[in-house]
Amino acid sequence: MSNFDKTREQFVIPEGQVYLVGNSLGLMPKGAAKRVLHTIEAEWGTMAVKAWNNAGWMDQPDKLGNRLAPIIGAAADTVTTGDTLSIKVFQALSSAMALRPKRRVILSDNGNFPTDLYMAGGLVNLLDSDYELRVVNPEEVMDALDEDVAVLMLTQVDYRTGRLHDMKALTKRAHDVGALTVWDLAHTAGAMATDLASNNADFAIGCTYKFLNAGPGSPAFIYVAPHLIETASSALSGWLGHAQPFAFEPAYQPAVGIRKFRVGTPSVLAMASLDAALDIWDDIDINDVRARSIELSELFITEMAKGCPSLTLASPSDPHKRGSQVSFTCDYGYPLMQALIADGVLGDFRAPDIVRFGITPLYLNEGDILQAVEQIRQIVDAKSWDKAEFHARKAVT
Amino acid sequence: MSNFDKTREQFVIPEGQVYLVGNSLGLMPKGAAKRVLHTIEAEWGTMAVKAWNNAGWMDQPDKLGNRLAPIIGAAADTVTTGDTLSIKVFQALSSAMALRPKRRVILSDNGNFPTDLYMAGGLVNLLDSDYELRVVNPEEVMDALDEDVAVLMLTQVDYRTGRLHDMKALTKRAHDVGALTVWDLAHTAGAMATDLASNNADFAIGCTYKFLNAGPGSPAFIYVAPHLIETASSALSGWLGHAQPFAFEPAYQPAVGIRKFRVGTPSVLAMASLDAALDIWDDIDINDVRARSIELSELFITEMAKGCPSLTLASPSDPHKRGSQVSFTCDYGYPLMQALIADGVLGDFRAPDIVRFGITPLYLNEGDILQAVEQIRQIVDAKSWDKAEFHARKAVT
Repeated sequence: MSNFDKTREQFVIPEGQVYLVGNSLGLMPKGAAKRVLHTIEAEWGTMAVKAWNNAGWMDQPDKLGNRLAPIIGAAADTVTTGDTLSIKVFQALSSAMALRPKRRVILSDNGNFPTDLYMAGGLVNLLDSDYELRVVNPEEVMDALDEDVAVLMLTQVDYRTGRLHDMKALTKRAHDVGALTVWDLAHTAGAMATDLASNNADFAIGCTYKFLNAGPGSPAFIYVAPHLIETASSALSGWLGHAQPFAFEPAYQPAVGIRKFRVGTPSVLAMASLDAALDIWDDIDINDVRARSIELSELFITEMAKGCPSLTLASPSDPHKRGSQVSFTCDYGYPLMQALIADGVLGDFRAPDIVRFGITPLYLNEGDILQAVEQIRQIVDAKSWDKAEFHARKAVT
Repeated sequence: MSNFDKTREQFVIPEGQVYLVGNSLGLMPKGAAKRVLHTIEAEWGTMAVKAWNNAGWMDQPDKLGNRLAPIIGAAADTVTTGDTLSIKVFQALSSAMALRPKRRVILSDNGNFPTDLYMAGGLVNLLDSDYELRVVNPEEVMDALDEDVAVLMLTQVDYRTGRLHDMKALTKRAHDVGALTVWDLAHTAGAMATDLASNNADFAIGCTYKFLNAGPGSPAFIYVAPHLIETASSALSGWLGHAQPFAFEPAYQPAVGIRKFRVGTPSVLAMASLDAALDIWDDIDINDVRARSIELSELFITEMAKGCPSLTLASPSDPHKRGSQVSFTCDYGYPLMQALIADGVLGDFRAPDIVRFGITPLYLNEGDILQAVEQIRQIVDAKSWDKAEFHARKAVT
């Protein structure tokens, strides 16, 4: 039995489905229910308030950060968990801006996930009127990096096409012009090695409900490079980031190290689910996951080219320039995806014309890929796809 | 069987304990485990990503807001849930500040819970250097309200003594000088009727893990007065507060109404636990809870005066000026509380010398109160409490 046959057995696979949407919400690890139930019944139910210490709830955000660290190429004690990715965008950005107090520009690209741009916009509105969120095309980022830029904020993997930014080169260029970087790993963490440390990333953030399978709305994470942790501060200076939360001091004194990036009381049930999801990673290496993701993605692309030549690959064809998803453009993408989902092939549609399929090696295998392509082929071939009708349907939704 | 005998039966009471710390973490409702397990297994496990729509996950934060609304005296569609209380402090404050753009002062008191002050301090640091967090003694707040003040931010019930601020009078005075109010209901929600609407509160925030028993780190909530919702904006402008989150538009367009105060992807497991905890409120009225809380608190104070006259009441003796907790000052408060906890009477210690006991009528009755007082009496009487020793122990912790 291969390693990936073993990991597949650790998930609940919805019956009659090929689940190519693990890049939106990862499937449920079998261990999650048991772990959360234990936290509720044996910890909350039995120990009640004493569980904050006796069951280790208080340290859970940082412990989970340390479990995540090797998956994203980070050193120990540089990652903590909590809040949502949107909040962590705000926290990382405002912290990075404060480290470049004379500069006024946040640079990002229009391939970034909208909430990153929304949160950056909210921060800019809150600050002086001379701050600016500057958004360029993804391929223009390198040239747009100049000495106005305080922070470069990018999502490494484009959520629509899977196009991968060159973290190392862009971070180097950012540093050359004196800027800091905030990398969003939403579609990276658990899908490929990120090597934050060797790429010299300054800040990174991400969610755990996609390729890390920690459940709907599970905690986000934040990474701060070791050389910045001492000087970086958090504008979201909540009590759990205080050096002594239970001293109830009137003045804020940040904790030492990554703990200062904690904010409020951790969501213990969500943390329990994340903990269970990370168990799977004890027996598997992220580099093997990446290699397997490339195998499966290449198979998918090859078979789609044969079976469904009318769909145009929207993802980079070079697997090393692509995350762990494969996208196609298709005029009738919206109704096609509706039909596919009804038929048990789960992917999703992203406006205006992208159908995307997430590749999660932890629970997908060759059989799934071949079955998905066959079902897609049959559906594409079987129907008379009337473009006008589909555009009308799209307008309604 | 009285209503409160019935509510008591809906909780798991840790064996051999009198749990007077529900103002820190409420006990586990029996329905919580089942509900969360259902969400994990029957929703996440079976529907996976489809559950966002099919299981109603996407609307859960606002639905829960509407379930909370009557408990805090708010109208429908004025409350939403999510994040932590610390984050909601930041969100409410920054929103209120933006509605008073010419003013620079946040007024609060040193009886406020530290995280409120920390978060306000973080916000002030982020803004122009002429912004100010002004902190006065609780009894000086009324006189400190002047036309410099943009926002008055107070926690209604003092977390140490239970002293209750006069929400109506302070809000009226704030409005008279042109300021807005942000009320923290951490120790109010589920303990007493708040009447946000009739008190003309502008913003309110709170947590759900104390008197609402939704579990460790359960979602916070935010209330915005109906007349402000249209003009108020959220600086934490995450995608779930967008008018059309799934349109993935590059520009932020806030949702109509309270939905704009949502931020990131909701923590679905935590929401499920909150939903189960709110079931209990379908059959009980908050005014009855308050009346019962006063009965039990008065009994506790009377019996303590008889049994433990050496402990000095730190809470207001007038029950209408007190939340749902009773506190005493005691030189040897720290070791006393350690001994009480070891003996099964759970309260907590707040520096420098406060022992506090939360009164939660949903699961406490006269028998618990009498038993607690008897155990406290025995422990106070039995030992030779050496002050010097206790101060030494305090210094170590």
